[in-house]
Amino acid sequence: MIAQKQIKQSAYNSDGFIKKYQRLIKEEVLPYQYGVLCDQAEGAEKSHVIANFINAGKALRGEDPQDGFYGMVFQDSDAAKWLEAAAYSLTVFPDKELEKIADDLINIIEEAQDSDGYLNTRFTISEKEKRWQNLHEAHELYCSGHMMEAACAYYEAVGKDKLLKIMLKNADCIYNRFIIQKKGGFPGHPEIELALMKMYRVSGDIKCLELAKYFINERGRDTHFFENEAKSRDWTVWGSNPSDLDYMQCGKPVREQSIATGHAVRAVYLYAGMAELAAETDDTELFSACRRLWDSITKRRMYITGGIGSTVLGEAFSVDYDLPSDTAYAETCASIGLMFFASAMLRNEINGEYADICERAFYNGVLAGMQLDGKRFFYVNPLEVIPGISGESPTHRHDLPQRPKWYACACCPPNVARLISSFGKYAYGENANTVFCHMFASGNVKFENGVEIKCSTNYPYGFEINYSIIKGGKKIAIRIPKWSKTFSVKINNKIEQVKPEKGYVFINASDGDEIVLTLDEAANFVYPSPRIPRLTGSIALCRGPLVYCFEGVDNDNDILSLKINTKEAPKASDYDNGLLGGVSTITVSALRTGDTDDLYFDEEPDEKRCSAIAVPYYTWGNRGINQMRVWMPRT
Amino acid sequence: MIAQKQIKQSAYNSDGFIKKYQRLIKEEVLPYQYGVLCDQAEGAEKSHVIANFINAGKALRGEDPQDGFYGMVFQDSDAAKWLEAAAYSLTVFPDKELEKIADDLINIIEEAQDSDGYLNTRFTISEKEKRWQNLHEAHELYCSGHMMEAACAYYEAVGKDKLLKIMLKNADCIYNRFIIQKKGGFPGHPEIELALMKMYRVSGDIKCLELAKYFINERGRDTHFFENEAKSRDWTVWGSNPSDLDYMQCGKPVREQSIATGHAVRAVYLYAGMAELAAETDDTELFSACRRLWDSITKRRMYITGGIGSTVLGEAFSVDYDLPSDTAYAETCASIGLMFFASAMLRNEINGEYADICERAFYNGVLAGMQLDGKRFFYVNPLEVIPGISGESPTHRHDLPQRPKWYACACCPPNVARLISSFGKYAYGENANTVFCHMFASGNVKFENGVEIKCSTNYPYGFEINYSIIKGGKKIAIRIPKWSKTFSVKINNKIEQVKPEKGYVFINASDGDEIVLTLDEAANFVYPSPRIPRLTGSIALCRGPLVYCFEGVDNDNDILSLKINTKEAPKASDYDNGLLGGVSTITVSALRTGDTDDLYFDEEPDEKRCSAIAVPYYTWGNRGINQMRVWMPRT
Repeated sequence: MIAQKQIKQSAYNSDGFIKKYQRLIKEEVLPYQYGVLCDQAEGAEKSHVIANFINAGKALRGEDPQDGFYGMVFQDSDAAKWLEAAAYSLTVFPDKELEKIADDLINIIEEAQDSDGYLNTRFTISEKEKRWQNLHEAHELYCSGHMMEAACAYYEAVGKDKLLKIMLKNADCIYNRFIIQKKGGFPGHPEIELALMKMYRVSGDIKCLELAKYFINERGRDTHFFENEAKSRDWTVWGSNPSDLDYMQCGKPVREQSIATGHAVRAVYLYAGMAELAAETDDTELFSACRRLWDSITKRRMYITGGIGSTVLGEAFSVDYDLPSDTAYAETCASIGLMFFASAMLRNEINGEYADICERAFYNGVLAGMQLDGKRFFYVNPLEVIPGISGESPTHRHDLPQRPKWYACACCPPNVARLISSFGKYAYGENANTVFCHMFASGNVKFENGVEIKCSTNYPYGFEINYSIIKGGKKIAIRIPKWSKTFSVKINNKIEQVKPEKGYVFINASDGDEIVLTLDEAANFVYPSPRIPRLTGSIALCRGPLVYCFEGVDNDNDILSLKINTKEAPKASDYDNGLLGGVSTITVSALRTGDTDDLYFDEEPDEKRCSAIAVPYYTWGNRGINQMRVWMPRT
Repeated sequence: MIAQKQIKQSAYNSDGFIKKYQRLIKEEVLPYQYGVLCDQAEGAEKSHVIANFINAGKALRGEDPQDGFYGMVFQDSDAAKWLEAAAYSLTVFPDKELEKIADDLINIIEEAQDSDGYLNTRFTISEKEKRWQNLHEAHELYCSGHMMEAACAYYEAVGKDKLLKIMLKNADCIYNRFIIQKKGGFPGHPEIELALMKMYRVSGDIKCLELAKYFINERGRDTHFFENEAKSRDWTVWGSNPSDLDYMQCGKPVREQSIATGHAVRAVYLYAGMAELAAETDDTELFSACRRLWDSITKRRMYITGGIGSTVLGEAFSVDYDLPSDTAYAETCASIGLMFFASAMLRNEINGEYADICERAFYNGVLAGMQLDGKRFFYVNPLEVIPGISGESPTHRHDLPQRPKWYACACCPPNVARLISSFGKYAYGENANTVFCHMFASGNVKFENGVEIKCSTNYPYGFEINYSIIKGGKKIAIRIPKWSKTFSVKINNKIEQVKPEKGYVFINASDGDEIVLTLDEAANFVYPSPRIPRLTGSIALCRGPLVYCFEGVDNDNDILSLKINTKEAPKASDYDNGLLGGVSTITVSALRTGDTDDLYFDEEPDEKRCSAIAVPYYTWGNRGINQMRVWMPRT
């Protein structure tokens, strides 16, 4: 049973904090990233993405494929993610020019599709004989999945079905190989599962559902599949180990899995697909596996920022409670994938826990991935950066004190763009009788079930959320976040005693009703489980959904000598429009330890009382290279 | 000018704590390790060391070299380190049987030496044409160095010069290549430098001094040497990168170096050789470089245990202040090398700082390397072990919660054996007018300058050190450790006001004098520099030279939820002969945080007052697998 579903992309007309970000995507990120795809962005590494599609078209027409293929084996997916983001953006900011660019790109993609529906420039420009020989590494299904997502998004956003038809033909090609010809196998990098579920929902094509089900059920069944596949060919992409099953979440059938392992992005993409399938097919066994994996992540393997995959080795989940701040990997894409997983879980079950994590990941793990001007991006999101060590120490090479411009392996920036542009889908949901406000986001929402609301709020810096019911007649379910120790609900100016059920208050909404939710605006200290060795004796600071951090620039360029006094309540400042794109800072009482040239000393050091200032984690690293720390020693 | 020198091995007749360890080496370690060399030790990996020497002899005589060479390219050095340890041990525990075994081994080694003096089984059993082609990786000079050290030790200990002659012939062979034929180059792994300095001192052969000087001055002069060497041959040992100059301390001439970099054992072996040469040749420029490197290590890159080389990647020094407890490398051999370096610095300059570090490394970083029964050994010495993470997390694979039996690359166990067996050389020193007590070690000492003393103490668990002057007439210089906040000196039962100069009190010693030094016996909290990010907000616990740690077994199997109350003074227990081979424990006041299933929570957790028990760091991991932590959060 589908508990509720995401709203349509066009249903949400954003405003406020989210709109500001969506405008950044529109004005900075999409043009820059398109420039990258065309190899015309200044200072960026060569991408060649669009040239690859053009060259594939030439190869198919028997023409000279010019300079051939360039880039990673999954280079095509950059075009797909850009197209998906552009599609979402077009519903927020209609733009004929951008639509023309997208249409032109879709035409180029059409030309790159083989007659049997196969679509992948790497194995079309040359070496066609290598198609499907390397499901382990070659990312053909991964690239198809991303393009399917783009196709669904573009169809939903603009109403044009050319790319959707291309990808339905591509799905047929895949169906033919895996279902009709029973050639066996499953993707090394999961992604197509959740994409096929989208294709099924948008097109109604049952073959997409069948294929998703096949890939999910096939995964981990034959644990020697990739080994045998490797033996049967004489080439490799990276020489990856086909026996590293945990890395690819295929050590056992997915229904038997309980522990989130391996490459974190692969993991959450897979789990999201599983949860979508479980909801769509009422598969309680599969949902139970999803729930176990959800608990494995959120109760034992997740940073306070919603970052997941704590180790650089394999960009992977480590073991339980191994959550180092300074050597964290916590890839931006993994937090995005965690939002996908959370949203898919909400399709199965109304439970605020999922939306809590979705919100945590968005405002911290995801937003931190992009510089405030939209021009630089983090893959890796440490919770502590100390210049001189971060990016320098052999074990901290991946933890950079500054967002780089672009990456040769450019998965995160377009992923951020598509996520932010489709924020409404994660913020609002609906079923026949109820509309759901999972996250608080200003703007108008027109639900398919007829309800229409307008939300006004300064969230995440204002804690009053106003809902005007433009068209009612159904229930409105509003999430009460777990972090809000108190809350109040006013309906038409009268306080109502409403009790949350599984994290939501349910209110009958009539036309013209005004509902005001007031959440707890206090800044809070957050304590870590004593089972996390790296965090013992330390505290973090949160306000609403935002995790805060301390940066050197606000604290005399030395945060290492600060200990936070938790006996005095933290104080949030008024909203400062001029700072870091608009933030409230938090001031706390602290002790500063005197410095010394000795490494170790046996006299208790001098400590001076002082105050310390924290800023939202997602804004860190926007004022030059300096120290940053989320978890601070406590006194 | 030589400020003072190590005593002769035979000068110190040990007693007490040290004798107990030396007996362990004699009774457990030497027999077991000899069994390993012969491939007759139960449960140990194949070593083949002695077989290699036998086979090399056969090859030289034109016989069939049987099963050829087996093992690492530096396998020969295991025999050398064992022989050196056995030599030292023979002065403490004369043993005709052991001496016979050593003599027989030396005969086998003699047979393995080529007519030109070349000695290395790897390139004698076969592939002679590869000799000297790979100074970068092939460890020929390293193996020679270790055998030279064994030769000096055996000659000093037993008076037999066969091995010394073998190694003088080997030195001639090296001299011929590098000095006479000017073939160029220097060792990838320093070691022979300090060994040649020993050879020079024992034999007086000026060629050894010249060679040491050559290798030290040549190092880092031609920064392309290893690259060119690699280009001129068609083979490699491990495919090591010949351009990774920092790893091998050859990025610039050693006199210009200021920062301790790269593989930590290589580094301190080199620096020890440099310091020996500086003292021997009055080379103040070289000594200045040694002093800068000393400061780089001890002021910015050393664990409280005297462990150095904090990262597993390259077994190397990281950057300043990057001293993680849980992912530490801190190889046992590196702490041993740090003792060599300290001792060599004392040859240049009387300064208690060197002996302080020497003692710190010995009682913590070195002794922790061996299980109390002498049967298991750590390479890697973390300052925190949490079963479930340590040895399991991808970034903690090297940090084991239990000492393994033996290693295929077996450098540490025989290194511990030779260090402990020659402890007197580090504890006592002398020059014409003065005898030096650098460390406190029960036993009789007969100095070359005629002085004879007897030291009685229960150190490191008793803090009264009694010196009976059997033969005086010179000064006795006794170190006052920096950790001792107070001290008193009684001479013939009368308290004397003596003021330390550079960490030593100087006393005129006459025959029959009784000198009693009383050091501070209080247990102390030790605070880390706020520049060490991983240690902010935490404290350690020390008493005398011993660093303490908390183990789960003494603390309800959960040390992660403990915070130490530094407002109450720690209390040392009486010496308990039955615990951990005889220790004093320390009890501190603590708070225990309540456990929770949540990763993060915003209510201040319950905390209960309790006491916590610490044991000496060197004894950890002797009571089964359990949690261990040196640095504890502080309240």
